Amino acid sequence: MTETAHPTLDAAAEQRVRDRSAQVPFVQTMGVVVEAVRQGYCRMRVPFTQALAQEHGYFHGGVVGALLDSAAGHAVNSVLGPDGDSVTVEYKVNFLAPAKGEHMTAYGRVIRPGRRLLICQCDAYVPGGSDTAPDGSTGRHVATALVTYARLA
Amino acid sequence: MTETAHPTLDAAAEQRVRDRSAQVPFVQTMGVVVEAVRQGYCRMRVPFTQALAQEHGYFHGGVVGALLDSAAGHAVNSVLGPDGDSVTVEYKVNFLAPAKGEHMTAYGRVIRPGRRLLICQCDAYVPGGSDTAPDGSTGRHVATALVTYARLA
Amino acid sequence: MTETAHPTLDAAAEQRVRDRSAQVPFVQTMGVVVEAVRQGYCRMRVPFTQALAQEHGYFHGGVVGALLDSAAGHAVNSVLGPDGDSVTVEYKVNFLAPAKGEHMTAYGRVIRPGRRLLICQCDAYVPGGSDTAPDGSTGRHVATALVTYARLA
Amino acid sequence: MTETAHPTLDAAAEQRVRDRSAQVPFVQTMGVVVEAVRQGYCRMRVPFTQALAQEHGYFHGGVVGALLDSAAGHAVNSVLGPDGDSVTVEYKVNFLAPAKGEHMTAYGRVIRPGRRLLICQCDAYVPGGSDTAPDGSTGRHVATALVTYARLA
Repeated sequence: MTETAHPTLDAAAEQRVRDRSAQVPFVQTMGVVVEAVRQGYCRMRVPFTQALAQEHGYFHGGVVGALLDSAAGHAVNSVLGPDGDSVTVEYKVNFLAPAKGEHMTAYGRVIRPGRRLLICQCDAYVPGGSDTAPDGSTGRHVATALVTYARLA
Repeated sequence: MTETAHPTLDAAAEQRVRDRSAQVPFVQTMGVVVEAVRQGYCRMRVPFTQALAQEHGYFHGGVVGALLDSAAGHAVNSVLGPDGDSVTVEYKVNFLAPAKGEHMTAYGRVIRPGRRLLICQCDAYVPGGSDTAPDGSTGRHVATALVTYARLA
Repeated sequence: MTETAHPTLDAAAEQRVRDRSAQVPFVQTMGVVVEAVRQGYCRMRVPFTQALAQEHGYFHGGVVGALLDSAAGHAVNSVLGPDGDSVTVEYKVNFLAPAKGEHMTAYGRVIRPGRRLLICQCDAYVPGGSDTAPDGSTGRHVATALVTYARLA
Repeated sequence: MTETAHPTLDAAAEQRVRDRSAQVPFVQTMGVVVEAVRQGYCRMRVPFTQALAQEHGYFHGGVVGALLDSAAGHAVNSVLGPDGDSVTVEYKVNFLAPAKGEHMTAYGRVIRPGRRLLICQCDAYVPGGSDTAPDGSTGRHVATALVTYARLA
């Protein structure tokens, strides 16, 4: 599903998702920025710094996984109410190409917003390739993930 | 397989694995320490700091995933020769309990050291539970992962 | 990627993929039919029979997984040459809804046709829902999978 | 955890798990036999027949996945009460070696019997190797899986 296929949120709901991101220390440690939030959708970006690198100067696989989990988690937050909360049950990431670039963008989408479980797909891109991302931009598709969340009561 | 079931390495081979760890910036960013290296095995520990937290003060799921991938990757390094290198193909992590504690320990084990692909299992524990870890210590089993690596030519 | 975004194959290449399917006994046991083959793409269908059911009369999860692996594997065959072969390295499937219906259709797509590894996404649908499948039809999206294959030398 | 580390069930509880297996048509289609049930544990075996083969005469990967899901699901049944039920949320299987042999045995173990979710590990072996299975027998370790189940209310 493309970015614009996801309904927009009202300003308060969107701000709520952005505010929650600011309260997650490790997301701040990585320097992740929320770029766009819609219903069941979140686009996040992390600038490259040497602190996030593996030995060859690319984004470390752990950073890729953490970014994918974060973007999917924020997409989940966009469909939970103001008091809703969730936990990550599991995630699986396939690496498609070296995550080399000045920044990396992740696109999290809820593909099944269940009553108890929410299933997400999330993809990461770096600049410079010819793959089309969910927001219509082109880049290099470097990783894809499936992520499962459980709603907390 | 328990820790002691993995053969010990000679001092040079063990040092090689430890030295490689020191060259991975993100592993240093997280503050990860190599605790033990054997043939097809690596035990790593990360002390808790607020910079690695999610919003409730536990280790962030992305940190758990990154630690598991790192410990498995170093277990792989222990079976590659001095000039060998590998890339992560994919990993999948199941979260079993909140990763809450002063530190978190991951146990990476190569379960199939193939000619082209190496498959690893990796488990993470925090202090305070009654689960038995691969080194015989007790703790709380917080996550388990399967990780696939490809040898580079 | 939609079905029509995948280039068509010449008749001989398409027949080759279909012929290989006929040589896989378990695919025949399940009653799977190849519906469409394109470059990096395969659509397969299995009619429901009681022999494929779980206890509530839906398709068994193992059948869902086997169908997803098969459709992805045939998508891989469409990009290997006449003498090419591959093995499944791993797959991961998320179940999104009960697989209940007169038949189930799987859409396998190669998302990274690497030199050594090929990564696929594969989705399964049953009739009756309002989710849009890759061929433009509507149905109920019951499962999604990521699958990794290794080329054989 | 080895087979004998799992507590035995009383005869009625064990029979309940075995009876449920007999009610799953696809498990019968594959010819799967329940060999042992304990608390949080199930060992299942499937004899090789040509109907379950892939093109080279091994067990088809879909059969391996279905057997792993089944053994894990029966391990889950052993910890649910008489009225309990569950659904598979997701599973991930890594293939370690060709599943070639007269039969294949799967060992499903519940590693986290949560209030809402149950996480299992499951491994499959064929005769002829030198890997040690959870029941102490030796064979060839051909696949390993992580499986997540959700309890139904």
